Amino acid sequence: MFDVKTVNQVMDIIKREFRKLDLGHEQVELRDALGRTTAEDVTAHEDIPGFDRSSVDGYAVFSADTFGASETLPAQLKLAGTVQMGKKPDFVLERGYAAYVPTGGQLPEGADAMVMVEYSEDLGDGEVYLHKAAAPGSHLVFRGDDTRVGTVLMKKGTRIRVQDIGALAALGYPRVLAEKRLRVGILSTGDEIVQVDQKPQGSQMRDVNSHLLAAGVREAGGEPVLYGIAGDRYEDIHALVTQALAECHLVLISGGSSVGTRDETLRVMETLEKSALLVHGIAVKPGKPTILARVGQKAVVGLPGHPASAFFIFRVFVRQLIQVLSGTQTVSSRVVKAYMDGNYPSNSGREEYVPVMLEEREGKIKACPVFGKSGLITLLTRADGYVHIQRGAEGLGAGQEVEVELF
Amino acid sequence: MFDVKTVNQVMDIIKREFRKLDLGHEQVELRDALGRTTAEDVTAHEDIPGFDRSSVDGYAVFSADTFGASETLPAQLKLAGTVQMGKKPDFVLERGYAAYVPTGGQLPEGADAMVMVEYSEDLGDGEVYLHKAAAPGSHLVFRGDDTRVGTVLMKKGTRIRVQDIGALAALGYPRVLAEKRLRVGILSTGDEIVQVDQKPQGSQMRDVNSHLLAAGVREAGGEPVLYGIAGDRYEDIHALVTQALAECHLVLISGGSSVGTRDETLRVMETLEKSALLVHGIAVKPGKPTILARVGQKAVVGLPGHPASAFFIFRVFVRQLIQVLSGTQTVSSRVVKAYMDGNYPSNSGREEYVPVMLEEREGKIKACPVFGKSGLITLLTRADGYVHIQRGAEGLGAGQEVEVELF
Repeated sequence: MFDVKTVNQVMDIIKREFRKLDLGHEQVELRDALGRTTAEDVTAHEDIPGFDRSSVDGYAVFSADTFGASETLPAQLKLAGTVQMGKKPDFVLERGYAAYVPTGGQLPEGADAMVMVEYSEDLGDGEVYLHKAAAPGSHLVFRGDDTRVGTVLMKKGTRIRVQDIGALAALGYPRVLAEKRLRVGILSTGDEIVQVDQKPQGSQMRDVNSHLLAAGVREAGGEPVLYGIAGDRYEDIHALVTQALAECHLVLISGGSSVGTRDETLRVMETLEKSALLVHGIAVKPGKPTILARVGQKAVVGLPGHPASAFFIFRVFVRQLIQVLSGTQTVSSRVVKAYMDGNYPSNSGREEYVPVMLEEREGKIKACPVFGKSGLITLLTRADGYVHIQRGAEGLGAGQEVEVELF
Repeated sequence: MFDVKTVNQVMDIIKREFRKLDLGHEQVELRDALGRTTAEDVTAHEDIPGFDRSSVDGYAVFSADTFGASETLPAQLKLAGTVQMGKKPDFVLERGYAAYVPTGGQLPEGADAMVMVEYSEDLGDGEVYLHKAAAPGSHLVFRGDDTRVGTVLMKKGTRIRVQDIGALAALGYPRVLAEKRLRVGILSTGDEIVQVDQKPQGSQMRDVNSHLLAAGVREAGGEPVLYGIAGDRYEDIHALVTQALAECHLVLISGGSSVGTRDETLRVMETLEKSALLVHGIAVKPGKPTILARVGQKAVVGLPGHPASAFFIFRVFVRQLIQVLSGTQTVSSRVVKAYMDGNYPSNSGREEYVPVMLEEREGKIKACPVFGKSGLITLLTRADGYVHIQRGAEGLGAGQEVEVELF
């Protein structure tokens, strides 16, 4: 017989029983690489920049030739030429000479410093006055300053951000070897469930959870695979879950709401080959009737049928599971402090997630609970986030400071 | 002649000079709707649920029939039948009768309350004992409790989140009318710039900014349109920007780094038809040589050529512009408090954005500046976020508490 587990116990079980899976890898074009995870170390194959470069518009010089130069006593140098952007200089600088180089242009061989154009005076007769002394290396970016050949720029397992796309472009990666996305199979159970585009007859209900969970999986960086509606029969559910498990890393069965359907889902999860039932019931509101099993290294979750309950169970537990199985921090939470607007009683003996709207009044952010019967998904469209009430806490008092986890 | 503007002045200009554009709209399948913006009010076309529903497994009753029922003195009722999930009950309940209804099942006509199965005893002879009195409405979700026909569930202009996908599914929307994405044209200038898959010759550089900016636009909910590399010539840049402006709402020209290329970009922006130059230079580090023009109701931004500078200008100003032009809060920032690890001097007289790595040491989060020459994009791959130094501040001292905006 299974005891109902606390939230912390379930989190511990997820960390203990699951680990990063080998997801395989694939080449991904740069334009599709944002948010993906590197499947190998990203190494520089060349020095960046590949040449000593000026970081200003001005004159390339031997720094020694500018020694002591000042506003009143300029260094007087002969002009060796002008460096073109993107071209290799076709001359070597010699002592006593200067050459014009635009920002980003290549430093001619021989030179070791730049003097900004602001401190120069082109005499028009092939000579230039420089009114400032330059230390060796002034206003230069040296070959390899950005990256040296062989440098590992991103370790395997790095989630690719906007600036990382830039770095990949700089290194000459038009595509990158990325981990495949975690495949998450999704199916709904319950004879009363119909497709979204169908009009429910009698007491039928539309399949909300498949779409809700698919969106959540996508937001968390996974790839949702929809298996449709399994109905109520053990054989049908078993067959569909078995197929989903063969094709995916994680399977979400969103339950029929009735005990009968839930029992069948439980039986399926118990009888899958290599299945180990880990959790049967969580002391949390909403979402108590949640089931978790490990099947080999993969995971199967039985979620409540009520969409709002399924949403919170996804948000709190399934996202954690996705992170563990895919081995990356794929979602991050944002928290704001707010003050409770009114009392919210709680004596369920379970941890509770309370959806709230945020309102700014009198210079303070107020958290207003979105009341309503549990399971009503439309309530959540009005919520900006939720407050987490600890087990044993006696609810929240008006004016109490709370942390709101934003959606 | 243009004065260099402060960050706040530029933000004010963006809010004053630009407004939400009419982006047009399109039907988007539910699976692609996450993060999109509704282009019309989303209204319920029916009551949800469409019937009075039990929220427990148990017996539907006339509440009056259970009056006074207790553990020792049960109400004794005749069984009228069993309601099947998803089916309309084929009987009407009469006084003195009870009917079994699973969670989510439809309440038979006549009944006004549910008694949970835990408090029942089926005698097996067509009668049931109920050991608890039920108040009218107990354990019921009434028709329309979730949403009533005609209710506006999401206003036009709402960004669609995970739970909103669920609500759309519940309302029977297999697709939703969404605003088209803001189209952002991107082009690079500079004769020294080559494609990412080319090996730079001499002092050529790869086109980092097109990819960097495209990823940033995508992250901000826009649709990047790449126009390639325009070179250095006024005519070429003008032609490509004109085309991009005709096809997009916002155009990003990422500058050649040399003054020459920058001058041509400026001249293009000044000579575009209906162009009003708004900003030429921002007192910010990195990213000073930034240009902003309004062309009709559209925007053109000339960004610095250095990728790291372009990144910060995008992050701070272009994202703001995207939000104003698309009329939605498309990106949100996450901020953590940290303590400076070491001193960071600053006396540039400009606001400064300092990329930092975060490290946890001695139970505190330390912000460690990622030092290096400006413009080096690879530096940013090591940064977790950045610290904003106000203008006139004398840098940051070791141990000082700072707010780090996370990437």
